[in-house]
Amino acid sequence: MREAYVVGAAQTDFGSFPRESYRSLFKSAFDRAADSVDGAFDRTEVDEAYVGTLGVGGRQLGLPGPAVTEYAGLDGAACTRVENACAASGTALRQAVIAIRAGVADIAVAGGFEVMTDMSGDRTRYWLGVSGETEWERMAGTTFAGVYAQMADAHMAEHGTTREQLSRVAVKNHGNGAENPHAQLGFECSLEDAMDATVVADPLNLYDCCPTSDGASVAILASREAAEALTDDPVQVTGAGQASGRVGLFQRPTLTGIPATGDAAEEAYEDAGVEPDDIEFAEVHDCFSIAELLAYEDLGFCEKGAAGEYIESGATEPDGERPVNLSGGLKSKGHPIGATGTGQVVEVFKQLRGEAGDRQVDGLGRGLAHNVGGSGGAVTVHVFEEGWA
Amino acid sequence: MREAYVVGAAQTDFGSFPRESYRSLFKSAFDRAADSVDGAFDRTEVDEAYVGTLGVGGRQLGLPGPAVTEYAGLDGAACTRVENACAASGTALRQAVIAIRAGVADIAVAGGFEVMTDMSGDRTRYWLGVSGETEWERMAGTTFAGVYAQMADAHMAEHGTTREQLSRVAVKNHGNGAENPHAQLGFECSLEDAMDATVVADPLNLYDCCPTSDGASVAILASREAAEALTDDPVQVTGAGQASGRVGLFQRPTLTGIPATGDAAEEAYEDAGVEPDDIEFAEVHDCFSIAELLAYEDLGFCEKGAAGEYIESGATEPDGERPVNLSGGLKSKGHPIGATGTGQVVEVFKQLRGEAGDRQVDGLGRGLAHNVGGSGGAVTVHVFEEGWA
Repeated sequence: MREAYVVGAAQTDFGSFPRESYRSLFKSAFDRAADSVDGAFDRTEVDEAYVGTLGVGGRQLGLPGPAVTEYAGLDGAACTRVENACAASGTALRQAVIAIRAGVADIAVAGGFEVMTDMSGDRTRYWLGVSGETEWERMAGTTFAGVYAQMADAHMAEHGTTREQLSRVAVKNHGNGAENPHAQLGFECSLEDAMDATVVADPLNLYDCCPTSDGASVAILASREAAEALTDDPVQVTGAGQASGRVGLFQRPTLTGIPATGDAAEEAYEDAGVEPDDIEFAEVHDCFSIAELLAYEDLGFCEKGAAGEYIESGATEPDGERPVNLSGGLKSKGHPIGATGTGQVVEVFKQLRGEAGDRQVDGLGRGLAHNVGGSGGAVTVHVFEEGWA
Repeated sequence: MREAYVVGAAQTDFGSFPRESYRSLFKSAFDRAADSVDGAFDRTEVDEAYVGTLGVGGRQLGLPGPAVTEYAGLDGAACTRVENACAASGTALRQAVIAIRAGVADIAVAGGFEVMTDMSGDRTRYWLGVSGETEWERMAGTTFAGVYAQMADAHMAEHGTTREQLSRVAVKNHGNGAENPHAQLGFECSLEDAMDATVVADPLNLYDCCPTSDGASVAILASREAAEALTDDPVQVTGAGQASGRVGLFQRPTLTGIPATGDAAEEAYEDAGVEPDDIEFAEVHDCFSIAELLAYEDLGFCEKGAAGEYIESGATEPDGERPVNLSGGLKSKGHPIGATGTGQVVEVFKQLRGEAGDRQVDGLGRGLAHNVGGSGGAVTVHVFEEGWA
């Protein structure tokens, strides 16, 4: 099996950028990723590009992939747009890894973008709703926050998870994001603020929900041979996993977990030859506070039902046993749908190389990225390790 | 390199099916493809599924892939939606081949679907326009037929291609489609009918344009080991190629060819170890009559500029030296965007196995499928050969 390495990764700021287009955002992220490569990198030597976008806004519903890669100057690449809702670029990453493992590519790009914040009011809700199930969720009036609210409600009822435990996700992630210059909501929030915010979909309030965002992110991957020519400080993708789950919540066997996360994690752990306990830090998909708690359990970081206590214990704080969402997560860093998956890779890459600035946690050697599409219709999990195999 | 084989392939009828949903269409195609596998095939053993759709109609803009694979019962598959406009399922096919070559999948599914015909009038044109470039083509008022009309105009001016030569594409493909029970426009047309039809976008008339269609198609692929357990009559994918080109026509170096077809074909021919002359028959992307003529040249079936004479010579008729679009092509069989690429595979698979009924051409051993996204922003080319490697 050929090994796949990340040799460069970068993102734009996440936020509201009415003067940027989807093309300019992707190009900015790509330019920064190219700059992050240690050696001499020629973008025309990229063999394959996988671009994730939900297509929010409908600017270029057909061929948005080639439209951004041509603008970024990737003239030698075969470009494929992939979409698994909010897991679009996690899916792009896995396809890039597969292309390198298959020998189809020596250099492959995975990235994503979304332009969301000029979709005002009702229209944003419409577009976000498309990540849920259309016929029996969206058209029945359920918002996307409403879908996760049902999971939160069930977790509270079944496992005694508290309002405060949910809010601790927001407090932690805002604390981390305050150190991230690319974060959209890069400010701290108090536990009181997080607990007392306006209700969005009971029991979830404003601080339980990530923002809508514009942004792009890119990871540059290379085979062992190509990577050796580009860097002395490689990050290997040692494990890749992807699973599908029922698109509609009502078709799942449980409301208190996301089965596809467990399935994707199992594949990624087996691929990497590791156990959950071996994961030193993680970027997980906290589109809503409850989603981060579900991830702790489904990824095997704690026992089923124990996620509330796990965050209360401080285990996932920057100085805890397993820091989670050091970037600020979707909650504070922002969530430009298609850019989120490879945006997580940016943080893992920087932390493993000691390039995370004020939010650097020293001594990290193995990290994980967890990207969820919709409420769990698709999930990708990847394991990253510093150094050559 | 692990070999990839097609062990089953099928499509729904292409046409207008207001009582079918995107889910039911995909499931029908999958059920038929599963039935076409010679041995005992268990759909829950599919490892990876790649589903192509442009998302025309917007029924499930996020996660349409998992939405159809769950409905078809592919409970063990990681599903990825891929999109390259009209080359969506050609792209899906290539990803399935790559997944098998990488060892990620023993059994992989490539398929696609589209629901178009309930998008009446203006809205259909809007959706089709998304396959062109948005900002400087669609928003400037160019229809998708208008884009290909510019190519036809240029080819006529530069190479002397005639009205009659364009119409011969329609006459041939309708003649072939009349033998295809799955064809949407399965009737013959005379040269006079084809030449005198209502203008759509000068110089293209109604018979130069494919219809809008509902439909789905599926190909089931397997590694050598898995294929040996499923069939004694395998079809190997010996060559796979994909290339991107400029999304907008105005950014291309030429109007009289599609550079990405040449690039994708070069990759596929090299992968298969063949030359254009070795291709015995082909399904090419005839969304407009001019597109089939461009394909002859870009695929190397004839000299640059000689496509008009090539079709006039009868070379691509069923009894010619290299039959093209024995299925009826997009023109007669129909063009449900996401279903077209793997729909072409269905014809190649049937012809190679001698299962093409009244339109069977005997003695064919090597075929090609050519799928174009937009006006050439993405192209896939695959080579298929009967038998084990």
